[in-house]
Amino acid sequence: MLDTIKGLAKKTDSKILMVVLDGIGGLPLELGGDTELATAHTPNLDALAPLAQLGQVELVGAGITPGSGPGHLSLFGYDPIKFVVGRGALSAVGIGVKLGYGDVAVRGNFATLGAGRIVEDRRAGRPSDEKNAEIVGKLKAAIPEIDGVQVEIYTESEHRFVVVFRNPGAPLGANLSDVDPQATGVQPLTAEAHDEASKKTAELVNAFVAQAEAALSAEPQVNGVLFRGYSDVPHFPSFDDIYQLRAACIASYPMYKGLASLVGMDVLEVEGHEDALSGKVEALKANWDKYDFFYFHVKKTDSTGEDGDFAEKVHKIELFDELLPELLALKPDVIAIVGDHSTPSKLMSHSWHPVPLLIASQYARKDAAVRYTEEEAAKGTLGLRKGTDLMPLLMANALKLQKYGA
Amino acid sequence: MLDTIKGLAKKTDSKILMVVLDGIGGLPLELGGDTELATAHTPNLDALAPLAQLGQVELVGAGITPGSGPGHLSLFGYDPIKFVVGRGALSAVGIGVKLGYGDVAVRGNFATLGAGRIVEDRRAGRPSDEKNAEIVGKLKAAIPEIDGVQVEIYTESEHRFVVVFRNPGAPLGANLSDVDPQATGVQPLTAEAHDEASKKTAELVNAFVAQAEAALSAEPQVNGVLFRGYSDVPHFPSFDDIYQLRAACIASYPMYKGLASLVGMDVLEVEGHEDALSGKVEALKANWDKYDFFYFHVKKTDSTGEDGDFAEKVHKIELFDELLPELLALKPDVIAIVGDHSTPSKLMSHSWHPVPLLIASQYARKDAAVRYTEEEAAKGTLGLRKGTDLMPLLMANALKLQKYGA
Repeated sequence: MLDTIKGLAKKTDSKILMVVLDGIGGLPLELGGDTELATAHTPNLDALAPLAQLGQVELVGAGITPGSGPGHLSLFGYDPIKFVVGRGALSAVGIGVKLGYGDVAVRGNFATLGAGRIVEDRRAGRPSDEKNAEIVGKLKAAIPEIDGVQVEIYTESEHRFVVVFRNPGAPLGANLSDVDPQATGVQPLTAEAHDEASKKTAELVNAFVAQAEAALSAEPQVNGVLFRGYSDVPHFPSFDDIYQLRAACIASYPMYKGLASLVGMDVLEVEGHEDALSGKVEALKANWDKYDFFYFHVKKTDSTGEDGDFAEKVHKIELFDELLPELLALKPDVIAIVGDHSTPSKLMSHSWHPVPLLIASQYARKDAAVRYTEEEAAKGTLGLRKGTDLMPLLMANALKLQKYGA
Repeated sequence: MLDTIKGLAKKTDSKILMVVLDGIGGLPLELGGDTELATAHTPNLDALAPLAQLGQVELVGAGITPGSGPGHLSLFGYDPIKFVVGRGALSAVGIGVKLGYGDVAVRGNFATLGAGRIVEDRRAGRPSDEKNAEIVGKLKAAIPEIDGVQVEIYTESEHRFVVVFRNPGAPLGANLSDVDPQATGVQPLTAEAHDEASKKTAELVNAFVAQAEAALSAEPQVNGVLFRGYSDVPHFPSFDDIYQLRAACIASYPMYKGLASLVGMDVLEVEGHEDALSGKVEALKANWDKYDFFYFHVKKTDSTGEDGDFAEKVHKIELFDELLPELLALKPDVIAIVGDHSTPSKLMSHSWHPVPLLIASQYARKDAAVRYTEEEAAKGTLGLRKGTDLMPLLMANALKLQKYGA
């Protein structure tokens, strides 16, 4: 389907604003009651909904609870069953590292090794983040590259770190065995490639282990490294390539910025702490003329759901509603309001329930849905859809897709 | 998708009850009128529906009228376009024969052969079931095995019988030509294999024909056999393997028991005749602690539709409604009420219309549907779905699926 859309996409001046309210879908606390969205006082959403089209979106498939990665990839038009971003890559992306096709990201643990390289503690006594950064500094100095391949080392937290191997021109494979023996009292394992494309990666990993132990030999506790979970990066045809869109990401948390950069969006600077809603609006205004697609991410609707705080999730929805007029004042040709998954306070976790979708443009049919809530969205003319339907619908409403066939 | 679900399934203590009201979907007798479900007095379903989620299910595809086999396979999560159980296998399953991967089931007709093996009557004068059984007894004694392959012979009815070849360890193919010439005045044909895997089967079939004619040479009328329709059995990954469910079937008709056993369910004993509803409820209660998934089949909603008896179908729906409280008293974590296809009395046959679906669990959103009827179900938040969506939705509502991706 991406190929079909790519063949139809055309460049125009119209602008699309995709607002992702993270984890927006909810549940009533008691059967038959109101969800967080239905409970919230949202006069601005309520004014938008009657003239918009509504529907429901399933990001991965029936009954499947999406992680944030697959949920977002689906919204961006990439089938999340086909485009799989592994845990190592998500760890790297989650701390803001940009990854490209052919790079390999690896999750590492610092460990304590005793005499004869015996693993004594697989977490090196859980060092502080500061100690972790100090060790990472030493490793960076000692291992800038291996055999011509670029080596990047990043602190994650406590005993966890991430290594990225980049070998432009010769993509690295990620199909190899772990170094972490997942036990103490034994030596670290030697990584072994499971396919031809990963032979070079296994050599890099084993060389890294040896060089790191040498560089850390004077450390009493943080003197070894264990690797578990290697990820290569699938080849994402870029937003520009598929949709002919100059696309910008407005988000404040690293993982979302990383996912957006994977598909070729520019990641805009956002001022402020945590969700930084006003900073995001400022970034949107300041860059409005420079792009024709904006991905605008709101995080706290998810965090409050994960906390199981129904009232606070309601409040975060109301905060978003308050700034909606500023977004609409920019007069986007198409605005979508959607989520990457549901996060009902009742479940205190992501869930499988579809998310409500609102699309407003000049080309909307009237529908029976009068509010942006789960119950109303189910009455909308957009129906129940896959997440990957969203981008084509937005492109169409922006008059950016040519006719298919004569 | 089965692979994705398999990768996410986890074992928990929660219990799922899937009630299949065979052929439940209906039509109004006059346009604009009420269906059988809408006509029925169903206070217990009416109490359940407002707190449940509703939707519509298409078992095979738009406009496609499902047979009972494909309808059930779809409900169990197996794409009925991919997992095809041929007519021979369904005939065998329909008389209660258990089939496994690599077995071949063949539909046979008894025939009358004249001088020179000329087919005089392709149905051997339509013998009685008793005569059929007598002939089958002779064949069983004469042909217990061929060339080390196990041969089983079963009476179906009148001139029809079924042969099953089982060759454990070396699966048999079923791609071969018929023995039945579909004409009189000619000899039976010689079966010829269309692929390598079916060469052995063709040898078995031709040997069976010769040995049967020898064994029946003293019979004046039932002295030949014709074969038409060979089925191997697709490899069904089992319920336990995919869903990690200990699953039980509660049904009274052989075909449904056979289908359930194909996918690895335990088939429970049910006391009573025909639909045996009270026997089924007893079986459910007696085994409630031993399984975490129950398939509970109700047949008469279909039979009355096939008879074109609108009032009687309404009555059978009301009978089910009366026993619903006994099912709910067991407190299943998830209960689904659904059909394997529609059987409108107006059509006196299966039909293509979607079936209404109800799912009740603690994780239901409120929806606009207030009764379990075709019209109300179309208002539900579950939307219009494929049958294969059902199992993932039930697994999700039972909290038996992990998150997909991070």
